[in-house]
Amino acid sequence: MSFAKLDELGHTLEALEHALSILRADEATYMATGGGEKRAEAVSILAGMYHAQATAPHIADWIDAAASEPLDDDQQAALREFRRQYLNMTCLPADFVRRQTETVIRSEQLWRELRAKGDWDGYRPALEGVVGLVREEAQLRADISKLSPYDALMEQYDPGNRAALVAPVFADLKAFLKDFIPQALEAQARKLARKPLRPLGGPYPIQSQRALGLAAMKGIGFDFNRGSLAVSHHPFCGGVPTDVRMTTRYDVSDFLSALMGVLHETGHALYEQGLPKVWSHWPLGKARGMSIHESQSLFVEMQMARSPEFWEWLLPLVEVHLGEDWTAEQILAHVNFVKQGFIRVDADEVTYPLHVILRFELEQGLVGGNLSVKDIPEAWDAKMHEYLGVRTIDNPKDGPMQDVHWPSGAFGYFPSYTLGAMMAAQQWAALEREQPKIGADIRGGNFEKLNAWRSRNIWSQGSKWSTPELLERATGEPLNARYFTEHLKRRYLD
Amino acid sequence: MSFAKLDELGHTLEALEHALSILRADEATYMATGGGEKRAEAVSILAGMYHAQATAPHIADWIDAAASEPLDDDQQAALREFRRQYLNMTCLPADFVRRQTETVIRSEQLWRELRAKGDWDGYRPALEGVVGLVREEAQLRADISKLSPYDALMEQYDPGNRAALVAPVFADLKAFLKDFIPQALEAQARKLARKPLRPLGGPYPIQSQRALGLAAMKGIGFDFNRGSLAVSHHPFCGGVPTDVRMTTRYDVSDFLSALMGVLHETGHALYEQGLPKVWSHWPLGKARGMSIHESQSLFVEMQMARSPEFWEWLLPLVEVHLGEDWTAEQILAHVNFVKQGFIRVDADEVTYPLHVILRFELEQGLVGGNLSVKDIPEAWDAKMHEYLGVRTIDNPKDGPMQDVHWPSGAFGYFPSYTLGAMMAAQQWAALEREQPKIGADIRGGNFEKLNAWRSRNIWSQGSKWSTPELLERATGEPLNARYFTEHLKRRYLD
Repeated sequence: MSFAKLDELGHTLEALEHALSILRADEATYMATGGGEKRAEAVSILAGMYHAQATAPHIADWIDAAASEPLDDDQQAALREFRRQYLNMTCLPADFVRRQTETVIRSEQLWRELRAKGDWDGYRPALEGVVGLVREEAQLRADISKLSPYDALMEQYDPGNRAALVAPVFADLKAFLKDFIPQALEAQARKLARKPLRPLGGPYPIQSQRALGLAAMKGIGFDFNRGSLAVSHHPFCGGVPTDVRMTTRYDVSDFLSALMGVLHETGHALYEQGLPKVWSHWPLGKARGMSIHESQSLFVEMQMARSPEFWEWLLPLVEVHLGEDWTAEQILAHVNFVKQGFIRVDADEVTYPLHVILRFELEQGLVGGNLSVKDIPEAWDAKMHEYLGVRTIDNPKDGPMQDVHWPSGAFGYFPSYTLGAMMAAQQWAALEREQPKIGADIRGGNFEKLNAWRSRNIWSQGSKWSTPELLERATGEPLNARYFTEHLKRRYLD
Repeated sequence: MSFAKLDELGHTLEALEHALSILRADEATYMATGGGEKRAEAVSILAGMYHAQATAPHIADWIDAAASEPLDDDQQAALREFRRQYLNMTCLPADFVRRQTETVIRSEQLWRELRAKGDWDGYRPALEGVVGLVREEAQLRADISKLSPYDALMEQYDPGNRAALVAPVFADLKAFLKDFIPQALEAQARKLARKPLRPLGGPYPIQSQRALGLAAMKGIGFDFNRGSLAVSHHPFCGGVPTDVRMTTRYDVSDFLSALMGVLHETGHALYEQGLPKVWSHWPLGKARGMSIHESQSLFVEMQMARSPEFWEWLLPLVEVHLGEDWTAEQILAHVNFVKQGFIRVDADEVTYPLHVILRFELEQGLVGGNLSVKDIPEAWDAKMHEYLGVRTIDNPKDGPMQDVHWPSGAFGYFPSYTLGAMMAAQQWAALEREQPKIGADIRGGNFEKLNAWRSRNIWSQGSKWSTPELLERATGEPLNARYFTEHLKRRYLD
């Protein structure tokens, strides 16, 4: 049985992934500094073993032979995802991968060094090298997948997502935000004139913040039998579904920064903990992709945890752990504060999409060959000025040099962030139609029914459907920007 | 170049060992409980990969071919240890290993269940199965190594140690202890009549005990750039030389229990951190064996950390962290307390060797066929009565069922504990001859010269010499029980 061979291979790959995931999480949390060199060597060798095992030529024969074996529905879906993973990992020739790896490592190193100085001219040749290879990669992937080059890149992160589907939705959203942002800023100014921001107090001891974070995680459904919370420089959600390694970092003068980070990562963690256990050694058992994953974190962080009902539940815990008495309104004025700025990762949910749309537009040009690296600064500046009213032409550090994605060759990834935000709003709306009393549930700290809906519609599905199919099955319709824009109107204008 | 192939294989094996060591340490410290099943699966698959890579038949050809290549001294030593590791791992047929693994797993499970009830008769058949296989294993190893069956088992733990060398040394020690223990107990009684034990105070908060432990570790030379201290149910020293994972456990009513444990494990840790870095991917770069390793932990815990000079250095730190003012004499009365008892792991350094000698004598009979499993309880009881004046015939739980070693098939390991204690005393004496002011150094918290001696003579040597050679090179003479007995006389009679 060829499927049985794939199944056994799945267990081997799962073991290597397990080791790699735990080693990576450990590196960012518990590893002694001096252990870094040997850790890098071990991870690189294990990753090489994974690659060798996952790309062996006989796997292609197993996949072909398994197709004519009697398989049940799940096995057929599993076979499809085995095939997808195999093609993804084998469609680039070994010598191309070597060239690309070297180029990317040097580009990232140079970016780290020159970003701080804002030295675009010094960095540009490295990015040109990366973009050249990305164009090659896109073409190689397009040859196999029969997609357009840019779609072939997106396909890696979100199977089924296509520029032709995303572009009109982004266009609607951009048009909406053009008028909406000034209105939201005005509404915010009026509100703040009546009720100024209550300054954060503190200092908030780390142990108290940690206890509050743990209580919030537990409340919204994180299973501490299968995961934990630690500290790292950059918060992440890693590990494996049976042992999710979540991290945060603490600022003693601002308890909201760690707490909102914890809520975001808990959204990712619930997805991982909710994946179907029996498929865990198949690609089918993995989370569907980046935009669906982001929809799960933003569902918690943006839809749920920036609502008044959520804070009516959480405020007593804030008082218990931090000894401060806040109102939901006071908190929401902080966490829903809108501000036009340069930096994507610091942006609020209203302005964030424009950062992403800018990159989506530019990187399509870069991959397609209609935009040259040398023209990025002008193009970036023009769009930033048009979308967010700020200028970056003399400030490449806070302009096109701000993100690691392009320096590391990750093109086609940026859309996932905003697609995730829109999908979260669309899922929230679908949930509300089915469970109209969801607000009261949250106010009462009852997250079971809400999580049951998410489990049934998203988590339990693993990678059974393409990204657009999964969204449509969960919400009853294709991606529609309206749910996100309605959400913004309710939250920022009412 | 065949040696070059072995060298590359070494890197692969080091990476797998790295993953396995960190995963095992993680399992006992940070892993979520529910992660255990998948962790066991991952570790078992990675261990299988290690075994497959380390025992591939072509390695025998590489080893043979490398022998006629131009190799420097280190490479020749490396080749010898590659060969030793290869023979160790390949001398048992695969189907024997399978039978043994199954038998041992069932035996350990049964032992855990029946030990608490003291049900020797229920457990006996399982141990008979294990002993049968151990006899087979010893013969298989003896056929390859041309050693006697028991020596072939010891060889795995301490290359070069032989029953014919150990037995007379143990006989001397046993004869000495027969008279010495009553004298030591009398001296102790006189002392305590004059100055009764000062009771421990407390409660000692865990954070304060941890801070004291860290300060002691740092003081005696633990490199926190390449290691850390965590909490686990059973204290251990694991991880890898560049990232040593040490653990302890805390008892809030007794600060000495965690502290002495930390000092013992720090002794192991310094050895690991001191191994030669350039050999780290060769078997040659590993610690020599169990008795040398134990000599390093006991050097710190017994020779150094149970001396008055050590406490003159440490007491100010005890006062800083725990807020209690002790004298060295008061502490030493606790940590050097002698008591005849049933349990090896609870024994003091005076009575401990008799627990080991008892097992050494019995397991030689078990492996050689002169003793049957059914006769163990009587033999155990007779020796316990002769050596330590206690009876175990009606108490198998605290008699032959107390240790996991035999249930798990580890025969030939027990001597390492007492060999380690004797080697530690012998090393201490050699160090004192070279550095007569060592007591003053310790009193002043200066551990550099002492560690330099240990590094030069033990740590930096990796596995370059057999266990007896390493000891003789370090101390100028073969194993000699006299240093240990002199140490006991000085500490317990003066």
